[in-house]
Amino acid sequence: NRIGIPEAILAEGKDKSDLLAISLAHLEETGSVIITRVSSEQLVVLRSAKLPPKSVFEHNPRARTVVIRSADRPAQAGRVAILAAGTADIPVAEEARVVAEEMGCQVLREYDVGVAGIHRLFPCLERMADADAFVVAAGREGTLPAVVAGLVNAPVIGLPVSTGYGIGGGGKAALYSMLQSCSVLTVVNVDAGFVAGAYAAKIARQKAHKEKQS
Amino acid sequence: NRIGIPEAILAEGKDKSDLLAISLAHLEETGSVIITRVSSEQLVVLRSAKLPPKSVFEHNPRARTVVIRSADRPAQAGRVAILAAGTADIPVAEEARVVAEEMGCQVLREYDVGVAGIHRLFPCLERMADADAFVVAAGREGTLPAVVAGLVNAPVIGLPVSTGYGIGGGGKAALYSMLQSCSVLTVVNVDAGFVAGAYAAKIARQKAHKEKQS
Amino acid sequence: NRIGIPEAILAEGKDKSDLLAISLAHLEETGSVIITRVSSEQLVVLRSAKLPPKSVFEHNPRARTVVIRSADRPAQAGRVAILAAGTADIPVAEEARVVAEEMGCQVLREYDVGVAGIHRLFPCLERMADADAFVVAAGREGTLPAVVAGLVNAPVIGLPVSTGYGIGGGGKAALYSMLQSCSVLTVVNVDAGFVAGAYAAKIARQKAHKEKQS
Amino acid sequence: NRIGIPEAILAEGKDKSDLLAISLAHLEETGSVIITRVSSEQLVVLRSAKLPPKSVFEHNPRARTVVIRSADRPAQAGRVAILAAGTADIPVAEEARVVAEEMGCQVLREYDVGVAGIHRLFPCLERMADADAFVVAAGREGTLPAVVAGLVNAPVIGLPVSTGYGIGGGGKAALYSMLQSCSVLTVVNVDAGFVAGAYAAKIARQKAHKEKQS
Amino acid sequence: NRIGIPEAILAEGKDKSDLLAISLAHLEETGSVIITRVSSEQLVVLRSAKLPPKSVFEHNPRARTVVIRSADRPAQAGRVAILAAGTADIPVAEEARVVAEEMGCQVLREYDVGVAGIHRLFPCLERMADADAFVVAAGREGTLPAVVAGLVNAPVIGLPVSTGYGIGGGGKAALYSMLQSCSVLTVVNVDAGFVAGAYAAKIARQKAHKEKQS
Amino acid sequence: NRIGIPEAILAEGKDKSDLLAISLAHLEETGSVIITRVSSEQLVVLRSAKLPPKSVFEHNPRARTVVIRSADRPAQAGRVAILAAGTADIPVAEEARVVAEEMGCQVLREYDVGVAGIHRLFPCLERMADADAFVVAAGREGTLPAVVAGLVNAPVIGLPVSTGYGIGGGGKAALYSMLQSCSVLTVVNVDAGFVAGAYAAKIARQKAHKEKQS
Amino acid sequence: NRIGIPEAILAEGKDKSDLLAISLAHLEETGSVIITRVSSEQLVVLRSAKLPPKSVFEHNPRARTVVIRSADRPAQAGRVAILAAGTADIPVAEEARVVAEEMGCQVLREYDVGVAGIHRLFPCLERMADADAFVVAAGREGTLPAVVAGLVNAPVIGLPVSTGYGIGGGGKAALYSMLQSCSVLTVVNVDAGFVAGAYAAKIARQKAHKEKQS
Amino acid sequence: NRIGIPEAILAEGKDKSDLLAISLAHLEETGSVIITRVSSEQLVVLRSAKLPPKSVFEHNPRARTVVIRSADRPAQAGRVAILAAGTADIPVAEEARVVAEEMGCQVLREYDVGVAGIHRLFPCLERMADADAFVVAAGREGTLPAVVAGLVNAPVIGLPVSTGYGIGGGGKAALYSMLQSCSVLTVVNVDAGFVAGAYAAKIARQKAHKEKQS
Ligand SMILES: Nc1ncnc2c1ncn2[C@@H]1O[C@H](COP(=O)(O)O)[C@@H](O)[C@H]1O
Ligand SMILES: Nc1ncnc2c1ncn2[C@@H]1O[C@H](COP(=O)(O)O)[C@@H](O)[C@H]1O
Ligand SMILES: Nc1ncnc2c1ncn2[C@@H]1O[C@H](COP(=O)(O)O)[C@@H](O)[C@H]1O
Ligand SMILES: Nc1ncnc2c1ncn2[C@@H]1O[C@H](COP(=O)(O)O)[C@@H](O)[C@H]1O
Ligand SMILES: [Mg+2]
Ligand SMILES: [Mg+2]
Ligand SMILES: [Mg+2]
Ligand SMILES: [Mg+2]
Ligand SMILES: [Mg+2]
Ligand SMILES: [Mg+2]
Ligand SMILES: [Mg+2]
Ligand SMILES: [Mg+2]
Repeated sequence: NRIGIPEAILAEGKDKSDLLAISLAHLEETGSVIITRVSSEQLVVLRSAKLPPKSVFEHNPRARTVVIRSADRPAQAGRVAILAAGTADIPVAEEARVVAEEMGCQVLREYDVGVAGIHRLFPCLERMADADAFVVAAGREGTLPAVVAGLVNAPVIGLPVSTGYGIGGGGKAALYSMLQSCSVLTVVNVDAGFVAGAYAAKIARQKAHKEKQS
Repeated sequence: NRIGIPEAILAEGKDKSDLLAISLAHLEETGSVIITRVSSEQLVVLRSAKLPPKSVFEHNPRARTVVIRSADRPAQAGRVAILAAGTADIPVAEEARVVAEEMGCQVLREYDVGVAGIHRLFPCLERMADADAFVVAAGREGTLPAVVAGLVNAPVIGLPVSTGYGIGGGGKAALYSMLQSCSVLTVVNVDAGFVAGAYAAKIARQKAHKEKQS
Repeated sequence: NRIGIPEAILAEGKDKSDLLAISLAHLEETGSVIITRVSSEQLVVLRSAKLPPKSVFEHNPRARTVVIRSADRPAQAGRVAILAAGTADIPVAEEARVVAEEMGCQVLREYDVGVAGIHRLFPCLERMADADAFVVAAGREGTLPAVVAGLVNAPVIGLPVSTGYGIGGGGKAALYSMLQSCSVLTVVNVDAGFVAGAYAAKIARQKAHKEKQS
Repeated sequence: NRIGIPEAILAEGKDKSDLLAISLAHLEETGSVIITRVSSEQLVVLRSAKLPPKSVFEHNPRARTVVIRSADRPAQAGRVAILAAGTADIPVAEEARVVAEEMGCQVLREYDVGVAGIHRLFPCLERMADADAFVVAAGREGTLPAVVAGLVNAPVIGLPVSTGYGIGGGGKAALYSMLQSCSVLTVVNVDAGFVAGAYAAKIARQKAHKEKQS
Repeated sequence: NRIGIPEAILAEGKDKSDLLAISLAHLEETGSVIITRVSSEQLVVLRSAKLPPKSVFEHNPRARTVVIRSADRPAQAGRVAILAAGTADIPVAEEARVVAEEMGCQVLREYDVGVAGIHRLFPCLERMADADAFVVAAGREGTLPAVVAGLVNAPVIGLPVSTGYGIGGGGKAALYSMLQSCSVLTVVNVDAGFVAGAYAAKIARQKAHKEKQS
Repeated sequence: NRIGIPEAILAEGKDKSDLLAISLAHLEETGSVIITRVSSEQLVVLRSAKLPPKSVFEHNPRARTVVIRSADRPAQAGRVAILAAGTADIPVAEEARVVAEEMGCQVLREYDVGVAGIHRLFPCLERMADADAFVVAAGREGTLPAVVAGLVNAPVIGLPVSTGYGIGGGGKAALYSMLQSCSVLTVVNVDAGFVAGAYAAKIARQKAHKEKQS
Repeated sequence: NRIGIPEAILAEGKDKSDLLAISLAHLEETGSVIITRVSSEQLVVLRSAKLPPKSVFEHNPRARTVVIRSADRPAQAGRVAILAAGTADIPVAEEARVVAEEMGCQVLREYDVGVAGIHRLFPCLERMADADAFVVAAGREGTLPAVVAGLVNAPVIGLPVSTGYGIGGGGKAALYSMLQSCSVLTVVNVDAGFVAGAYAAKIARQKAHKEKQS
Repeated sequence: NRIGIPEAILAEGKDKSDLLAISLAHLEETGSVIITRVSSEQLVVLRSAKLPPKSVFEHNPRARTVVIRSADRPAQAGRVAILAAGTADIPVAEEARVVAEEMGCQVLREYDVGVAGIHRLFPCLERMADADAFVVAAGREGTLPAVVAGLVNAPVIGLPVSTGYGIGGGGKAALYSMLQSCSVLTVVNVDAGFVAGAYAAKIARQKAHKEKQS
């Protein structure tokens, strides 16, 4: 892929055998494939596939992703920090992690920031001080990304999560409040962990590239 | 009024002379009247009214309220704290103040909290430590009420303000995020300074009443 | 918890074993935990937990809550009145009751007010005359909170319930009409019994505190 | 018109001279015309029209209607009751009155019901006891029609009015809550005084017709 | 019930045994009860109930209603016409029929009007010429009620049905277009067959009452 | 333009002098330009432009369009029928006409169809029997396009118009009901007369082209 | 059917035996029937039907359609091109194909255009150069129809597909962006493959008819 | 400002003299201030201000921004590319440019990309080959950002613009389609040129910083 995003397939809504066929085709063509939102039925079929020798098959049950790789990952290129406000945000945050790692980035994670309260946020951010880009996942009222964007120099990607019931639930309040935020940040769609992770890796990789060049 | 909320009239959309007539009727019946969302045209007519001797006429230009009073205000009864996240939130916050004072409360104000950053919030809250209820006005992403509710013991009323453009603008994101907040707080409608101020005064007054009884 | 809301966990969407682990951690740290929106599967796992000796395990099947307590509840502090307009509103009203009681309040309940017609409302409110705060649950058109707020001196929290089909169903009409109400009341999100109960208890407790002080 | 609704023209958005031409054409064809939502500019042009001799020209400034009639109104046929919850609802209620009277009905009005509180509603309804149909106009939370429908035997038409700011404002909360109401009532669109009045007259007239037949 | 609508219970969302208890209580109090939106599980429980001797138990599987009656129905009182645009609209139309009959009306039905094309509408309407009120059910774009209202003298109640996929589906387009209609008609909420039927019966009964009086 | 749609400029929101410059550039490049939604201020500037000799300047005040042409129109190519349901729909229908004529089509118009009632529709459609495509403009409930599509063989384009107040107003109900229609038709956006006219001309021209070829 | 659209039945939401009865009635009347959105249960019943001798029964599992035909299809009449942006769009595209073929059109298909990138679009369009109408199916952001409409002379029908999660998901973004497109195209509702296919065939057939006439 | 975004003030909705006071305060504190969405009235007041000696006052009339600077801009740090799809998108694109330049970036602009067609995009992107981040502004259907993100290696920020009428107008379709895009990109709110420009500069500056370090 000329712009360097790994081949990814959204499994949701795809027929099991179609999914397998497309996945193997991608794998053959490019040496790797990421499959997102994999159901347990689809997983069985993917596991049973006859892969090329020395292929790696990685299933992340929280992220509901499968990565198949016959070639090596790109070399380490940049650092991505991923924060999640609560337990419910972890699956989406993990989806972001899988793709960022697949793009060769080192990923730093902090998944219990919101629960622990703001006083726990500062040491987290210090541990992440040299990250090139931040993905911050948050559901319900979605405040965390704006707070982080007010505290770090690196670009922050707001990742709204479809938690919360009632009016503004399902990620809507989170997305709206990130779009209205007074902090400087950008957003992806609700639950779009794949996009957030790939975007962060794009930023990190580009910077890493420059460092190497010089 | 048997449940102790002062007579209030929403001037918006009312004919000038109708407004004057209703206002004077209320004044006569109860000894005071609050008129909200008064246009400059309506103000002229209200000012020209022949009031009972010793009446007080108070115009608050930021809140766009007029208070007319022929009797005394109720005696000091409770303390209400009002915070606003930014300059644009002041008119609505002031509307809340006018009604809370009219109900006999002492009002503590801090209107540049959001602008100043969270580090300025702590000294504000300390100055307001003995408030019986908090009204917290915030537009755009509307985060401040949830932050305050996580820090004070008294009940917090979230007051969304119709600022912000684009998706979630006009107070929608603010209202949604307050409703989705993990903090324990309640909300009133967008720009409903009157309701927020009267509700806070209800809480404060009831507590003051108990203090006096004992 | 320094602002006195008991530790609460929203079970919905949480993995069974994660839920158990978080619950026990909270219990250990603070001496009690409230778990809301518990599924029957989650309940089985919670019941099977090895609790500290002398712990109390309370399951409220209508509210779908579990309370686990190793320390005593706070002493009686204030009175909260909870009204529900109809049978469908009871689960949410009960969720409010559980948390208010856990915060040490005495709770007065009337759950068939709307069904019985307005003439039955007056004796209800008389029995509740000394309540410090009212939670009023109502679905469909959500009128009851405004009616109550027009009749009592204590603050009223409107609690919209997700009943009703068609346009405005699922609690939307109820929330909207509470926000538009001419009465002075505040609201929480649709089905947010936890927030309504905790907020009412905050008001009641604060008043009780003052009474004791004097 | 074979189904007995008088010719009516919605002036809003029509060119002045087009409006005049259409109005005169209707007048000539049927002996009368109702023009609704007339702007002051349009009024001037309508007033300046050369009408057939003995024509009646009636302008209702609150309703913003013009009625022109060269033939007599239909004979008295049925009784329509019109209630309005507040001052802001009067223009729309008046639009309903104009059309109902034009259809030959006797109209009973009560326009300050909501302001006066529910205790004033009972005497109003007693004075209207023999009405054949009720139009009940209400803005903001729009509760009044459901209350009336729970108290009278005749059919009630809910007429939501575009008052109220914030979420659910502009008549949306009123319409939604009427649609969700537990009472048996039907609704027309927000501000559709014309439709409500004509529908009530249809009911009243039909009944009157039967009375005469027998 | 003093305003003459029979006791009705919305079964949806109610616990089986609660439903049974409430139903029997209503039956005892008033001599009849209508239960709507009954699930097959709930039906089993209702069928197994020990009813008073000589009670009638009527299950309408299309309407998903159960009627239990220990007293006689009111005497024949008025005629209600019910039209449905297509097969998918029949359940809702039948719900309307059940309640109208329970209120003592004679019901005339035509359920394949829309499918057959407008040329089939005219003979239908002729057969229904002496109806006192029309209920017209229609899903998708919901045109039929406006067409009927343009052709008959009696009042027409538009009953939107939750058919149709995509934007405007689920009854939204139907409701909106009935509200926007140039014809004079009123509407009830989507799928609210009960309300439509009871309202039509209210009109019909009132007229019949007058006929009898004279 | 290789796919044969004439150059068109949406004037709305454009600076006067920018508009003039772009218009002249288009005119020079292609020999003609259509400018839509022209304000009266913009018109003055366009009129004052120095055009190439023999240019034609056509202003259609109802459609608010300006056409400038230095070359000849394409030869007569196909027939487009345009219907409008009411007076308020004419400006949008005229916008469609201007572009269809500019693309070389003969346009047949009927603009008072809806007002006149369905019995007047049949003779209209007979006069339009040999049209290659129909544009049917309708506001409020937007029924007319579906009716026409059920009666003619040629393809029908539904053109919703932004009339109507209240819920579903501004063209929303019209668009939704066209999308939900049981008839086979396609739609363009609300008020998009330009798109509807150009699309109809595309169909008509293509057919005319085939006729000529053979 | 006088306007030449084949009889079609939406199976969704219909009772199995009702569906069978209606289908056979249509078949008998017109010699063919198309049944769309057929569930596997309904399919079993349809398969078991006793059809007239020499009837053809065609099940398209991707499109979820059943066609039953006792008469011959109309003779070849025009060419329809159908494009789909991705795998998820195929079922809806196939539904369009089934109806277009049933109306006698030759259908050209390209179903992996979006996945392959724009460079693959050009050869596709060349193979489809003589198509009389294009149906272009696209989910998520729905860009493909506008791109195609900018490249071909024949009319393009945008067919939004209900893929995509988060805000704008379920086909909403696709429909909105087609309606906002700067290209000249028309749209049908989300997932309305039947309407798109029938409309394209209407265009194609009409043109073919003209070719034959000459 | 410790995270390096220049002080910016949203003039919209602010009182003239308040605006002036806040602006001068910021200027004094930090040596520069950006004021966005400045009305012509506000501009007059700002122009009349007594600035510190050697201050620079820059008004960008298209962007409606005012920059006042008493200190030097940061040194050149990174390259930001800004593309706009059409003339209507220029004001928002310019707002992005002003802030990016103020943050020390070199800005490359191409503002007529969408109008010129995709074939003109390639040379644009070549001229911008070494940009560190792209801001792509687009209204109506908002396609351009996804196209660019599919062609360049640097991160792309989608900037929806509030153009377009009808359903999906005002930037909604643009925002939705960017959120649904299969390309990897992030978005800011509708018309949020300031946020887009500042975010791009954050990326560019960070990369430039790394280059210098090495
Ligand atoms: N979870 C995901 N969320 C958003 N986009 C995704 C996701 N997974 C894959 N994609 C993207 O969606 C594109 C289309 O997916 P597909 O439908 O599999 O062809 C892929 O090329 C990915 O760029
Ligand atoms: N600014 C305001 N916002 C919300 N409610 C108000 C406001 N001002 C007055 N009210 C309330 O609205 C009620 C009805 O107002 P009116 O339309 O004047 O009868 C008053 O009794 C007040 O309780
Ligand atoms: N039913 C509920 N509704 C709303 N908030 C709740 C509910 N149950 C718990 N919470 C709150 O949600 C917060 C976050 O929950 P958790 O996702 O478990 O970390 C808790 O601290 C509670 O304050
Ligand atoms: N204020 C109104 N609200 C709703 N419908 C109206 C109103 N005034 C007139 N109408 C109806 O709208 C139809 C179309 O009006 P017109 O646009 O004047 O042809 C008339 O025949 C009336 O039945
Ligand atoms: Mg969160
Ligand atoms: Mg704010
Ligand atoms: Mg209720
Ligand atoms: Mg009202
Ligand atoms: Mg229908
Ligand atoms: Mg119309
Ligand atoms: Mg797609
Ligand atoms: Mg654009």
